Amino acid sequence: MATIALDAMGGDEGTATAVLAAAELSLAQDAGIIIVGDQAKIDPVLKRARYDGGYLSVQHASEFVGMDESPKEALRSKPDASILVGARLVAEGSADALVSAGNTGACILACAKHFQTLPGVPRTALAAVFPTELRRGVKDDPFSLILDVGATLTADADTLVAFAQMGSAYASCISNNPSPKVALLSNGEEPYKGLPEIVAANAILSQDPRINFIGNIEGVDLTRGRADVVVTSGFTGNVVLKMLEGMSETVIDLAKYAYRSKLTWRAGLMMLRGGLLQLKEVTDWRQYGGAPILGFDHLCIKAHGRSNQRALANAIKVAHKGVRNDLCGRISALLEERSDEA
Amino acid sequence: MATIALDAMGGDEGTATAVLAAAELSLAQDAGIIIVGDQAKIDPVLKRARYDGGYLSVQHASEFVGMDESPKEALRSKPDASILVGARLVAEGSADALVSAGNTGACILACAKHFQTLPGVPRTALAAVFPTELRRGVKDDPFSLILDVGATLTADADTLVAFAQMGSAYASCISNNPSPKVALLSNGEEPYKGLPEIVAANAILSQDPRINFIGNIEGVDLTRGRADVVVTSGFTGNVVLKMLEGMSETVIDLAKYAYRSKLTWRAGLMMLRGGLLQLKEVTDWRQYGGAPILGFDHLCIKAHGRSNQRALANAIKVAHKGVRNDLCGRISALLEERSDEA
Repeated sequence: MATIALDAMGGDEGTATAVLAAAELSLAQDAGIIIVGDQAKIDPVLKRARYDGGYLSVQHASEFVGMDESPKEALRSKPDASILVGARLVAEGSADALVSAGNTGACILACAKHFQTLPGVPRTALAAVFPTELRRGVKDDPFSLILDVGATLTADADTLVAFAQMGSAYASCISNNPSPKVALLSNGEEPYKGLPEIVAANAILSQDPRINFIGNIEGVDLTRGRADVVVTSGFTGNVVLKMLEGMSETVIDLAKYAYRSKLTWRAGLMMLRGGLLQLKEVTDWRQYGGAPILGFDHLCIKAHGRSNQRALANAIKVAHKGVRNDLCGRISALLEERSDEA
Repeated sequence: MATIALDAMGGDEGTATAVLAAAELSLAQDAGIIIVGDQAKIDPVLKRARYDGGYLSVQHASEFVGMDESPKEALRSKPDASILVGARLVAEGSADALVSAGNTGACILACAKHFQTLPGVPRTALAAVFPTELRRGVKDDPFSLILDVGATLTADADTLVAFAQMGSAYASCISNNPSPKVALLSNGEEPYKGLPEIVAANAILSQDPRINFIGNIEGVDLTRGRADVVVTSGFTGNVVLKMLEGMSETVIDLAKYAYRSKLTWRAGLMMLRGGLLQLKEVTDWRQYGGAPILGFDHLCIKAHGRSNQRALANAIKVAHKGVRNDLCGRISALLEERSDEA
């Protein structure tokens, strides 16, 4: 049985939300879950919750890293922080993967401290899922993956190639898409367009038969969902991801504006309510289940800070799926092969 | 009287559209316009149009650069291309600014060939206007300027600083905003966040009393309209601009999807028609009047390839306003001062 370590301390929604997500999942008797955090806060919640003790345990951690703390300093001064304890449990083999809704930087640094970078991985990556136009094709869901979104600001050609391999492995493990379409984000579709590292990565990926590389895509192609996996540097990925967050906000603002402006518009909006709820659903970060940190010998899923119980449960399920499908083993095989060639 | 040279050959909408835009504007007896292009195509349109011959003339050019041609090769093999002839007219003093809806690369290269880069400008920039949330503040319109969007892919700190100065000068000349808010696009608001060149540019701009620098903004702030002038490298700017283009497309797609899906949704959309038309208006590139190429001793406005008659007329008006308000002189003063300091 796979076991997931859940950092119960970091998220905006508090410890109870994390504990309840774990308790609920334990009843499915699927994966084991270790709740990591302040026992004095966890126990009272557990006492009132329904859960299966055969699939749930608690590991006390006396400290935690706040959302606004400097990750580096916090980890240095708090050796018993829940995120560090969780990562250690995984590194020691007591758990198979880590899930946290806490401070993103602390999460990445805790992994870097306790996990090993896989051979052939120049830099680890933080990936994120974003909504695209609704499609019903080979891939039966309206989401794409983008990486890196901020673990490393600049990426050379080798790093971009590794991101492409890791993203492809993740998408095929998690979204049941055997051949996800992988693309480089650039300023033009032509293979000679882009920063020098993108042009070089394009040349390498075009020759790789193991991934479904479709070439360069442009900004306009992101929400169209042309690629299942979008590869870019952490700087550009971060700007893009935050723009996508702003997009759904703008749609909602426009709707509010229309609602206030005119009686017929308001009536129209009422009639469109189902459609807007569906849109909200699609652009709701809480359902996605979190962003994987890729390139280590163990999987870590970073759930959104604002994750509710459902989102945290989804993140645990995604981590479990990654373990079950041996995501890290697949990445390792892809990248070792590549470093053998080089 | 200021005179604008209009390249009538390059746009997607054809020569007649450009000629009719010029003819219409000539009746306002405001700026002079020289239509540059194939006289055999221009004359028949003029013959049927109303125009004021005192404000309109034609300069024959036997060749032109197509949208899909390689700019470098086309300019080399076509010395009498309309965009080159137009730029020459400006350089020689027969006209004061250039407007074209043609091949963007050819437009920039033609300026580089005939114009002088202003002292203190490390790299010229292509700027673009994009729609933001509706606001009624100091700045009374829902648009912001972003530069560079593709003239130069990477930008060092000095280049970013020059972009900030040029963008600020342009916004204050054209949108009547005496103190436009200028920001650097980065992966975090904190001044220490971002690529090294962004951190360095932030430090320089923070010390500059001549512009209203508000620091770093993130992707989510773009459509919120937090900054009037957004400064970034050409690579990131290009990705961002194309994402913004995709955004309005996505909203329209979602509306179409809702329209097809359900009878009540369709009825709701009919009632929202006025609102959607207003949205379409705001996201309609044709009304913006084009993107300035900044950093040369003469102004060039690159209108969108799909510009219709109204958009071309707006582009000419913007060029005229830039000349009237001595945009290039203002940029020159700002940047010379800066290079004096250095």
